[in-house]
Amino acid sequence: MKINLVAGGPPNLIPDFTSYDGSNVIWIGIDRGVYFLLKAGVKPTAAFGDFDSVSAAEMAEIEAVVTDLKKFKPEKDETDMELALNWALEQKPESIKIFGATGGRLDHLMANIQLLVKPLQQGSEIHIEIIDEKNILYVKNPGTYTVTKQDDFKYVSFLPVTPAVSGMTLENFKYPLNDCHIPMGSTLCISNELIRGHGTFSFSEGILLVVRSKD
Amino acid sequence: MKINLVAGGPPNLIPDFTSYDGSNVIWIGIDRGVYFLLKAGVKPTAAFGDFDSVSAAEMAEIEAVVTDLKKFKPEKDETDMELALNWALEQKPESIKIFGATGGRLDHLMANIQLLVKPLQQGSEIHIEIIDEKNILYVKNPGTYTVTKQDDFKYVSFLPVTPAVSGMTLENFKYPLNDCHIPMGSTLCISNELIRGHGTFSFSEGILLVVRSKD
Repeated sequence: MKINLVAGGPPNLIPDFTSYDGSNVIWIGIDRGVYFLLKAGVKPTAAFGDFDSVSAAEMAEIEAVVTDLKKFKPEKDETDMELALNWALEQKPESIKIFGATGGRLDHLMANIQLLVKPLQQGSEIHIEIIDEKNILYVKNPGTYTVTKQDDFKYVSFLPVTPAVSGMTLENFKYPLNDCHIPMGSTLCISNELIRGHGTFSFSEGILLVVRSKD
Repeated sequence: MKINLVAGGPPNLIPDFTSYDGSNVIWIGIDRGVYFLLKAGVKPTAAFGDFDSVSAAEMAEIEAVVTDLKKFKPEKDETDMELALNWALEQKPESIKIFGATGGRLDHLMANIQLLVKPLQQGSEIHIEIIDEKNILYVKNPGTYTVTKQDDFKYVSFLPVTPAVSGMTLENFKYPLNDCHIPMGSTLCISNELIRGHGTFSFSEGILLVVRSKD
């Protein structure tokens, strides 16, 4: 099973859901994201949120269709995204994709990116991506990973999430690296590009944010 | 002197420059940001960039007006923003404001936020903000800071930039805190609000990202 979470970020940044659908995919709506799913004709398996960003008419529509509605009060310690992601991780899916999590409020975006870090620190190996029209983001623990060329996401950038990432090595990239120390704040690994069909990145210490993007 | 840097992010996220102008303010354009300044009738004191995002006609217009043009080749280790920010810090200004640094490519946004961290680690006390239509971001070393209520930026959120922030205390906030440990990935300090004209936040360890935002 693959889980796709849809939050309520600006709709112009959310890609067409059909490219990410499939027989083993379930869709979960978060707050206004539930409404985006309904408008696109996708039935959410569950919905999470305080729904403070949804109008009464939209809420009625949501309640009529979504059977598993997990409604929370706005005054809570976790964001709606955190509650939904925790639930998704408990289902032990093959992968998790998150849409509608970028644009607009940058506290939400930064919190959403940081939420990817916690499962890694707890040893989870579920691949979680934040996806929008121009970007694909994920974080990784030390190891060696393959990246496949995607012409529509030309740039591949790497940033430390921890104070530094050590032993950074890039192969088959326009700007290769060998065993480099990358401190937070270095822009050395921004706007790299694959020069072959596949490339690899590896590092020995820290947590790394990978961003594939286009202009 | 105050320095305002304008990068080439999506123009719809860039606020009106006139609210941030003044007799002691100088404006610096970065790549396509130079063109945004010229279009708004603001003469940049200097311009930084490889200008790979600027058309030939736009480039001619820039060269006719900007005398201090610092042109770099696209294949360099630093981003244009890093070069411009380093220059700005050397001028020892009162403050630095960065516009056009959000939206679009998230590798650029993340790198821009991380660039704020390096001067802090080097002991600089220059207040640097990233500003867009919906957000004001800055980072701080341990200490006690005052936040003034701004009705147009209702939410105040706090996120650790380091693996954790310790001793986090919030006063005059809707959700106050006393001596809390906030690990990266916690969403406890997202969407807080001031309940008086002023509030304070303080912490004893780590580096903290402050985001003031609106829906």
